[in-house]
Amino acid sequence: MSGIVFKLGVLKLGCIGASPLLDLLLDERADREDLDVKAFTSGAKLEPAACALATASALQYDPDLILMVSPNAALPGPKTSRSTVATAKIPIITVSDGPSKKAFYKKGSKSDPVVNVPKDQGFFVLPCDPMIGARREFLDPTEMSLFNADVIRVLASTGVLRLIQDELDRVIAELRAKGTVDMPKVIVTPEKAVISGGFSNPYARAKALAALKVSESVAEVTSKGCFVEQDATKYITLVAAGHEMMRAAARLADEARELEKSVDSVLRTPHSSSGDRLRKFRLGDKPT
Amino acid sequence: MSGIVFKLGVLKLGCIGASPLLDLLLDERADREDLDVKAFTSGAKLEPAACALATASALQYDPDLILMVSPNAALPGPKTSRSTVATAKIPIITVSDGPSKKAFYKKGSKSDPVVNVPKDQGFFVLPCDPMIGARREFLDPTEMSLFNADVIRVLASTGVLRLIQDELDRVIAELRAKGTVDMPKVIVTPEKAVISGGFSNPYARAKALAALKVSESVAEVTSKGCFVEQDATKYITLVAAGHEMMRAAARLADEARELEKSVDSVLRTPHSSSGDRLRKFRLGDKPT
Amino acid sequence: MSGIVFKLGVLKLGCIGASPLLDLLLDERADREDLDVKAFTSGAKLEPAACALATASALQYDPDLILMVSPNAALPGPKTSRSTVATAKIPIITVSDGPSKKAFYKKGSKSDPVVNVPKDQGFFVLPCDPMIGARREFLDPTEMSLFNADVIRVLASTGVLRLIQDELDRVIAELRAKGTVDMPKVIVTPEKAVISGGFSNPYARAKALAALKVSESVAEVTSKGCFVEQDATKYITLVAAGHEMMRAAARLADEARELEKSVDSVLRTPHSSSGDRLRKFRLGDKPT
Amino acid sequence: MSGIVFKLGVLKLGCIGASPLLDLLLDERADREDLDVKAFTSGAKLEPAACALATASALQYDPDLILMVSPNAALPGPKTSRSTVATAKIPIITVSDGPSKKAFYKKGSKSDPVVNVPKDQGFFVLPCDPMIGARREFLDPTEMSLFNADVIRVLASTGVLRLIQDELDRVIAELRAKGTVDMPKVIVTPEKAVISGGFSNPYARAKALAALKVSESVAEVTSKGCFVEQDATKYITLVAAGHEMMRAAARLADEARELEKSVDSVLRTPHSSSGDRLRKFRLGDKPT
Amino acid sequence: MSGIVFKLGVLKLGCIGASPLLDLLLDERADREDLDVKAFTSGAKLEPAACALATASALQYDPDLILMVSPNAALPGPKTSRSTVATAKIPIITVSDGPSKKAFYKKGSKSDPVVNVPKDQGFFVLPCDPMIGARREFLDPTEMSLFNADVIRVLASTGVLRLIQDELDRVIAELRAKGTVDMPKVIVTPEKAVISGGFSNPYARAKALAALKVSESVAEVTSKGCFVEQDATKYITLVAAGHEMMRAAARLADEARELEKSVDSVLRTPHSSSGDRLRKFRLGDKPT
Amino acid sequence: MSGIVFKLGVLKLGCIGASPLLDLLLDERADREDLDVKAFTSGAKLEPAACALATASALQYDPDLILMVSPNAALPGPKTSRSTVATAKIPIITVSDGPSKKAFYKKGSKSDPVVNVPKDQGFFVLPCDPMIGARREFLDPTEMSLFNADVIRVLASTGVLRLIQDELDRVIAELRAKGTVDMPKVIVTPEKAVISGGFSNPYARAKALAALKVSESVAEVTSKGCFVEQDATKYITLVAAGHEMMRAAARLADEARELEKSVDSVLRTPHSSSGDRLRKFRLGDKPT
Repeated sequence: MSGIVFKLGVLKLGCIGASPLLDLLLDERADREDLDVKAFTSGAKLEPAACALATASALQYDPDLILMVSPNAALPGPKTSRSTVATAKIPIITVSDGPSKKAFYKKGSKSDPVVNVPKDQGFFVLPCDPMIGARREFLDPTEMSLFNADVIRVLASTGVLRLIQDELDRVIAELRAKGTVDMPKVIVTPEKAVISGGFSNPYARAKALAALKVSESVAEVTSKGCFVEQDATKYITLVAAGHEMMRAAARLADEARELEKSVDSVLRTPHSSSGDRLRKFRLGDKPT
Repeated sequence: MSGIVFKLGVLKLGCIGASPLLDLLLDERADREDLDVKAFTSGAKLEPAACALATASALQYDPDLILMVSPNAALPGPKTSRSTVATAKIPIITVSDGPSKKAFYKKGSKSDPVVNVPKDQGFFVLPCDPMIGARREFLDPTEMSLFNADVIRVLASTGVLRLIQDELDRVIAELRAKGTVDMPKVIVTPEKAVISGGFSNPYARAKALAALKVSESVAEVTSKGCFVEQDATKYITLVAAGHEMMRAAARLADEARELEKSVDSVLRTPHSSSGDRLRKFRLGDKPT
Repeated sequence: MSGIVFKLGVLKLGCIGASPLLDLLLDERADREDLDVKAFTSGAKLEPAACALATASALQYDPDLILMVSPNAALPGPKTSRSTVATAKIPIITVSDGPSKKAFYKKGSKSDPVVNVPKDQGFFVLPCDPMIGARREFLDPTEMSLFNADVIRVLASTGVLRLIQDELDRVIAELRAKGTVDMPKVIVTPEKAVISGGFSNPYARAKALAALKVSESVAEVTSKGCFVEQDATKYITLVAAGHEMMRAAARLADEARELEKSVDSVLRTPHSSSGDRLRKFRLGDKPT
Repeated sequence: MSGIVFKLGVLKLGCIGASPLLDLLLDERADREDLDVKAFTSGAKLEPAACALATASALQYDPDLILMVSPNAALPGPKTSRSTVATAKIPIITVSDGPSKKAFYKKGSKSDPVVNVPKDQGFFVLPCDPMIGARREFLDPTEMSLFNADVIRVLASTGVLRLIQDELDRVIAELRAKGTVDMPKVIVTPEKAVISGGFSNPYARAKALAALKVSESVAEVTSKGCFVEQDATKYITLVAAGHEMMRAAARLADEARELEKSVDSVLRTPHSSSGDRLRKFRLGDKPT
Repeated sequence: MSGIVFKLGVLKLGCIGASPLLDLLLDERADREDLDVKAFTSGAKLEPAACALATASALQYDPDLILMVSPNAALPGPKTSRSTVATAKIPIITVSDGPSKKAFYKKGSKSDPVVNVPKDQGFFVLPCDPMIGARREFLDPTEMSLFNADVIRVLASTGVLRLIQDELDRVIAELRAKGTVDMPKVIVTPEKAVISGGFSNPYARAKALAALKVSESVAEVTSKGCFVEQDATKYITLVAAGHEMMRAAARLADEARELEKSVDSVLRTPHSSSGDRLRKFRLGDKPT
Repeated sequence: MSGIVFKLGVLKLGCIGASPLLDLLLDERADREDLDVKAFTSGAKLEPAACALATASALQYDPDLILMVSPNAALPGPKTSRSTVATAKIPIITVSDGPSKKAFYKKGSKSDPVVNVPKDQGFFVLPCDPMIGARREFLDPTEMSLFNADVIRVLASTGVLRLIQDELDRVIAELRAKGTVDMPKVIVTPEKAVISGGFSNPYARAKALAALKVSESVAEVTSKGCFVEQDATKYITLVAAGHEMMRAAARLADEARELEKSVDSVLRTPHSSSGDRLRKFRLGDKPT
């Protein structure tokens, strides 16, 4: 396939923090000649009909790989979409949040869950991409945007997005080479993410890990506020607290990056225009 | 059209800071029964072919209104897309950045520019949504995401996104009522944006205005770094400075919101599930 | 017992964040004429022998009430101490951390745990008082002190210490009145704590709640770092991350208090010299 | 005495910022096999009777060394306690605040004061451990705890606690060796403290010194507010200002430590389980 | 003198923090029609010859009032200048730092110092305007400027400059009225300054007071670093610490102002173009 | 002229941010034996008469070089002063703000402006020294001082003042050597300033550049607020926003310096007492 443009279809069903920029991760300067990316969405909703329509559009694009992103990938909408894509024999990788684990694991003979996905499918489970505080008294378009800005900051500064980038770069290379393809099957724990973060300063790494652990614990607070607590006085405080936690996590992530700036060791991994993954640490250096 | 679901097609050509969350602004809790939103993208690129493909998909969706978002809407890709949409007789509103002014204005008899868009078309020009520091030594997927997180924070906290929300809510209502439709034709200046911000505290308003003025001036720094300066030592510092300015703008926007929190006067304008625009200031209140 | 000095024995076995200042909570200005407080400790350690010695000294003091504080109150040392105190027929209230739940609850007929403590005993379980990052590569006396300073800030600013103060004030009054005594049996959840925090500003309340939720999640990180992970490279990052989370929680707690300062509504509940609990909000007011 | 456990009795009479964690400084991870520490307190009060009782309990423990901590060690309560300990022929080291100088110095032949303590006695005078703002309108248990959290942060981050740790480690070793014992007689000036702070970055050292100088000047403000000014309007502002100064000092101390983190040079001096004092700078290193 | 322009000569001998902007305080928008201000300086130096030259220029201007500002006004240079001005029968007010007290006070019959200045002379002693860290290893033009920026922020935000402004406005009015003139004789304590600060929020007042107390204590640290300590290693840390304290004081002063912003109660006291002193609190109000 | 004292007359006409400390830049510790500096001012105003008077005083001092500083040096007052100085055959260097460009440039044959100043004259144009928010509802002496404190911080931390210092040191040396003198003709762009800033850390350089770019854009906001907008509601917000931008710029400048502190590479360029320009980076080093 070398010399030929690789077509990546990004299928966004509903929205999590990883969704808004996912289709831009691999062509961050819009200058790659070897890659074409198109996104297709179901809007904010996850209903099967909406998912089906977006999936149909995505298949129509005839992509070499589909990258699906959604909340809770175990729900009927995303689940059926994966089947449809499988039927079309297009490899698919799903990015989803904590509750999606049950979509990709089954109970093993012992107590440990076992990966359970069809061949040609992969996934990234992001427990650090927590549910938003979706209560009408609290969430309006402005608050929704701010929460996503905080989640994006955490996913970016700590290494989560680079982990996804690295794996996608690898899978696309393997698909282009038409050899064996090792689809990613990763629960993106804080511990794994900060390795991709590439921190030189150990305190930056600790702060990034802290940011992700806080993000993970946001999910419990917002979902209690959205689904469990029914007294408005109480659930408003809960969802507001969840967003304050997310803001604190973003600040920790920012501190981590500022620490790396102070010793001029921010890892950068841009793509070349021909799609090679480059790498550099000192700001003044050329990426190689 | 009452009782019938309104279909909004969001056409994302390339990316600016307003793009990532634009299709979620009107259905922030994914519970509106009167509205269906789908997004269609050209990926990171703006080439006419990519734009045409996404536009075709959008038209296939048969929307009641198209909301297009792109950098520099005067470029051939977005321009042709607008023509295609116009030919299909679907109303279209464009959201774009500072350089797009020339797409919507022509020289008047005197020196002042005059709005020049076809009937059924509207626009939001956002000079506060500045170009990213698109230099390979600096911009990788992580840095790209962080810049967008900062821009989103500024657009949200200051009132820019609410201004867009307000106008879209109005236009959709007018389209549903099948009466006269007054398409928005707005250069979203900082001064206009902070009115939509709905600040109670005058210093919060001043800080929000400051955030937007800084954002506007980022554009000049990053575009110099990307297009004018050719010495890597110099352009790296320029684009890095542009992103530091954006981070400072985000902090100002955050300060503005924190000030409003301190007197419990954060304006929130959620949608009801039937699409009414609600409004509230005190966190404990019900939106009405 | 009116006119007579009430004797409170504070029995500190090992150390949690609530320990260092617990014996000072009821006589913050050292001027109460109706109350005498003495503390007895087992040092840093929790061994049964050390606990027994400290308990014997406490009993020798012949207190009207014993307030015991320790990590994991279900361990043999604290457990035996409680029995010894019970045998001496002195009422006892235990303050302990999350793992202590099993000391005070048993499985109920259904799945819910049921309180299981002898008459004349009470408890406060503080899941927000997390384990320290007790790894030799990381924890020295300086780091130990800083972690405790952060925990104290969270317990104080959010309302946890006031909740304890309120209950102790009440129990002491009931004991003095020689009537029925309702011993506290409280899992101090973030939700309960912020009620005692007495916040006027709802965002201050949300930030306080956020601080406590983060504190709770520290426990999981530090205990993994101390007990589960055996690779030094990994556990050092974990315990360091736990302390960074605690520092972030302290900052959230501080933000909450600063918000209350901005509207001059910081709740203060000093004791009068005769032991009455006073109350005030505006800084310039007299407590009443 | 090798192989035998050294018994350290910590006698807390009233409270200063150095008190709450003093008994934990030498066994920060509760795993020392060569050391046993017990604390005995007089509660918040300093009355001679309360001091005598706690002193008696401490002697009963038959310690190898007594570490006494109190405000103003020249007052009758602490003074008598020292005599009692001396009579019992147990070495004693006192930790106290600025006003305690007169307990340990007498006028010399010239104008300079001369150390004046019995053999077998030592002291640390901490002018940087200032009086709390003990006015009923201001100080409640919450505010008391927050002030102590700030003082602890300053004492820890700047090197004061390490200076005490170092000296105690040395004295205990000398006592165990049954040779000459050089009891510490130290006014812990900011200049001496920051040497123990072990800063690699000179600006971190300067910030730590600044934190301590601010702490020292708090004492003058709070004691004026407590003892001199009788107009409530005025003394409330004074004691509140004292606590704001302490909060600023804590922030300076925190800045100092963050600077050291940025170059990965935070000094850590943990104890081994056999009581050796270890030392390390890089977070990833083993202490040696 | 009404209708006639009042001539104010500002005589700057050397420099303290109050010097740089002193001549602009009374005509902040450069639009007063009733006032003319000229400044005359001796440069950075305080030598008698330099002072004499500047004083002669000032007298040549034939002002109605001379406002002199210098470090240590008791030194020969400023002292002789005051005599020269007195001989010329021009009223003079001196603004100086802490060491200048001895220029304006003598020992009284009891121990309290007594004001001792000629008729027609007044003074402001500013102990909160501390000596700079004037060591060559530390102080260059950049550091000098930054220190002054911090001092200016403290003097402005806390009320010191408004106290001076108020008194000068009053004295000028009295001089114009040709009646009795009550020359200011003020040691500008923190307590007095914050009254002029006009704070509505009591915590803002406490933070301002704290800023000034810290400023006062800087003097002791920098003068020790400049005059007492001769070991470069030590005095560099001292003067650097003094500047860090000043930076912390500036931050406290900034916090005080931000608190007032949050409740829209920043006091502003502009001059009208005819020299009336106006007053306002809410940002949106007209000054009256 | 060696061995002889060089006389520098500083002529301050009105005020910009560079004015207040300009006469102290070359003798920061007041110990230079080879240099005498005197300042002469027109007060806050720029009227020709006031300028003429100050200029006359300055000439009377018979300086070897005049350094003039004023807003908009193209206005009649400063312009005439320059002519007067030229007539007196004294070399003069002007420091002024952005609008002063037209004083020093004329249109060239092509479109580019061409330097147009008499021999023996030089200039520094500082577009980063923006107009203050001179509206009576907003600007009082306190606010005026705070704005200047922020401007001074930016000019100092970023390298602007060092650029001026460097050039003045050079010109004075050339004048003393009585050889060719190359008068500075510099528009102090952010890009030039940060070179003089001497940053070791590239992110510090970027933050400094960002601070200056924000400062430059303040001018547009405040001048719109002062001259264009006539509705008080609107211009108050504009000038307040301008000052918030300046505060944000100061914070960026401060961040830049703190980054350099973290790696102990703050450039310092003190003068020796004989006027040599020294240079050092590590705080502990001697300047050489």
